[in-house]
Amino acid sequence: MISRRAFLGGMAGAALATSGPRRAVLHAQQSPGLVRVRSADLAGRIDALSAFGRPAGGAFASGVSRIAYSDADVEGRGYVMRLMTAAGLRPRIDPAGNIFGIRAGSEPQFSPILFGSHIDSVPNGGNFDGDLGSLSALGAIEALDAAGVRTRHPLEMVVWAHEESFAFGHGLACSRIVAGDVTPADMDEVWNGLRRADAIRKIGGNPDRILDARRPKGFHHCYIELHIEQGGTLERAGIPIGVVEGIVAIDKYDATITGVANHAGTTPIAERHDAMLAAAHLTVAVRDAVTRLPGRQVGTVGHIEIAPNSPNVIPGLARMSVELRDLSPTKLVAMMDDIRARAREIAANTRTTIDFVQLQNSAPAVATPEVQSAIERAAGALRLQSSRLPSGAGHDAQMMALLGPMGMIFVPSVGGVSHAPQELTQWDDCARGADVLLQTILEMDRVV
Amino acid sequence: MISRRAFLGGMAGAALATSGPRRAVLHAQQSPGLVRVRSADLAGRIDALSAFGRPAGGAFASGVSRIAYSDADVEGRGYVMRLMTAAGLRPRIDPAGNIFGIRAGSEPQFSPILFGSHIDSVPNGGNFDGDLGSLSALGAIEALDAAGVRTRHPLEMVVWAHEESFAFGHGLACSRIVAGDVTPADMDEVWNGLRRADAIRKIGGNPDRILDARRPKGFHHCYIELHIEQGGTLERAGIPIGVVEGIVAIDKYDATITGVANHAGTTPIAERHDAMLAAAHLTVAVRDAVTRLPGRQVGTVGHIEIAPNSPNVIPGLARMSVELRDLSPTKLVAMMDDIRARAREIAANTRTTIDFVQLQNSAPAVATPEVQSAIERAAGALRLQSSRLPSGAGHDAQMMALLGPMGMIFVPSVGGVSHAPQELTQWDDCARGADVLLQTILEMDRVV
Repeated sequence: MISRRAFLGGMAGAALATSGPRRAVLHAQQSPGLVRVRSADLAGRIDALSAFGRPAGGAFASGVSRIAYSDADVEGRGYVMRLMTAAGLRPRIDPAGNIFGIRAGSEPQFSPILFGSHIDSVPNGGNFDGDLGSLSALGAIEALDAAGVRTRHPLEMVVWAHEESFAFGHGLACSRIVAGDVTPADMDEVWNGLRRADAIRKIGGNPDRILDARRPKGFHHCYIELHIEQGGTLERAGIPIGVVEGIVAIDKYDATITGVANHAGTTPIAERHDAMLAAAHLTVAVRDAVTRLPGRQVGTVGHIEIAPNSPNVIPGLARMSVELRDLSPTKLVAMMDDIRARAREIAANTRTTIDFVQLQNSAPAVATPEVQSAIERAAGALRLQSSRLPSGAGHDAQMMALLGPMGMIFVPSVGGVSHAPQELTQWDDCARGADVLLQTILEMDRVV
Repeated sequence: MISRRAFLGGMAGAALATSGPRRAVLHAQQSPGLVRVRSADLAGRIDALSAFGRPAGGAFASGVSRIAYSDADVEGRGYVMRLMTAAGLRPRIDPAGNIFGIRAGSEPQFSPILFGSHIDSVPNGGNFDGDLGSLSALGAIEALDAAGVRTRHPLEMVVWAHEESFAFGHGLACSRIVAGDVTPADMDEVWNGLRRADAIRKIGGNPDRILDARRPKGFHHCYIELHIEQGGTLERAGIPIGVVEGIVAIDKYDATITGVANHAGTTPIAERHDAMLAAAHLTVAVRDAVTRLPGRQVGTVGHIEIAPNSPNVIPGLARMSVELRDLSPTKLVAMMDDIRARAREIAANTRTTIDFVQLQNSAPAVATPEVQSAIERAAGALRLQSSRLPSGAGHDAQMMALLGPMGMIFVPSVGGVSHAPQELTQWDDCARGADVLLQTILEMDRVV
């Protein structure tokens, strides 16, 4: 962890960069000398990587299906490792299947600055989610090499394996192992006939030594991840750099609504116990509970099933999901209290019963304030406007937050679209993000 | 059809039975002589019939699965035909598979009074839907035989084949043929590998002569059907006899709501195009449109499917059914206009599009006023309170309404439950219904 004293030391110089007029002066002075990631290489590599898992006969815009542990994943990883090797890094696959590459710092006793992302995708996903952060990490190291800049801390890039929640039904799988959340029995998991041990072996990991993938608290100086926003907040505001305040907490519930199935023709309105009507009111109640409070919290009813689900039968049963996300777990509880109170009224009015079961209760991962400040200084040094915002999606960064300081940089997603072939971040925004990543690494390197 | 003049002639005598004090006097005079259906036989036969299609190891309360054309259906029909034969009727199976049995009247030139119901059931149905009306029809003929009462009109009982909408995905199938809605090509329909011609042959029909099952308009003097209500209106009101005003019109729509599927975590509330939220508002709007107008109209959202239907994805697509029923087609149009107007607001508010496709538009079948009056007089003669109400469910009676006068008698369903093993009409109510059927036959026999 960063000591407070050491950090204030780092802040002292950086403060020049954050106050208005002096920042401009400093920027003018520094600008010619600012090391930049080669943006043409970055775009070319994102394009080249997109070939692994591209639909047959498709183009870049057709998106990608590079499911974790698939042949496309293995090939994509091979491509990135060849780039790493060419850059003078010696890629190492840990027992969990994550790819690491380290560049020495001037102070051997300093802990490494860790940064990277993932390259696996959802089925029919896009070419920026994960790929941008992974290839920018490499680009940052190459840029420092080219400029002859030596950092005090070792720089360690990482390409996490199995980030997306598709294979084995869950994601953040291999950063989770590094964070210590693993037992040997996890390797016996089976998905689509594939044993997890065999999956990890396929990508070069060693499931027999899976516990050796764990790293201790404080092993890294900080973890930094550049990622596409996946929402439309930055694009709408015209702001190129997002400083992630943290990764939201998620509370997920299953609501079961029990009414009475009956004939849609013979049952008068007054005698109905209509589970679908209750589910409809509850869906509206979820939205109301979310919008009633100020802030950026979200809530979603994404799943519903009713029975018997026939046009001429009043539904007797409905099951629906209620998923709430915010940085503040307290706010999630307040929203759910509101929803529960409204559910009691709805149940009474529709003569149904409504029961909730909590399925998930994920803690938030707050980005370390010092890393957030470093990202803001980095953006400032590059004359880029930045804005703080939460991450509504999960990222490997939340696993690294369990071991030490963490920060994330977001760049705009066109139309807020992600996990779809239409996912797009403009090349200029990609380059800006990579440069902010590089500058943040340098900012954090000033901190002991 | 009943001529107005002839009918008024019939009404003249009957009027005595409907005005308050005189009815009481008349009833007292008639009561000792009123012919009654043997209620013990009726209950015993409903119980015996329940054995055909009973779940293995079950009891009467376990309900029945006597799907049209199943072995259980064939066996149940055989049981009823044996009863008919024992009663001196010679059961005849028409080319469509319907069972008829005729008792001669004193005036050979008079058209028959037709009455009956069906004995097929839905899967896991109850023992009263159809069975009560079929066995009461036989009981009425037996009671007249026992009392030595000869009617002027021939009396024709019928057990319709394939009433329930399960086999071949549609119901009222064989009364529809009698009403003339059939072509030879219909016999080529296939359901679960079963050709409709073979299905009809299995129950003793003759698909090669299917057109001969058609009967001309006016072939019957009137059609009368006793049936369980299937709703809870009569039971709640404590009224033993329902006089059906008609079988409701049904308008059915498929609503397609198109939004944009997106990440439930990264997409701010203000940027959503949530198809599930729109579907929820629309479901509430359907209920509101139905309850805004006075009357007994109903409306149901019984079917919904959303995509991708995952808790962590904002639904981009929803399809739901909207089914509206009332005796008045004009009211159905007014309700749908209301729903469409509300849908436009919902689409604008949720930034989705909502499109409706009409899937069904069934005309109502109004019960003939003269038959309704005859049922009321019959109930009055038996000192039974009666109440007019619509039938929200379809019945073979609506097919017979295409050929001539029609009326239906309802008896209370406990808890309004039907199409379920719990379906129940108390034996006393069954007996009352059978007696009202018999008296209505006699009332209608007074009409030439």
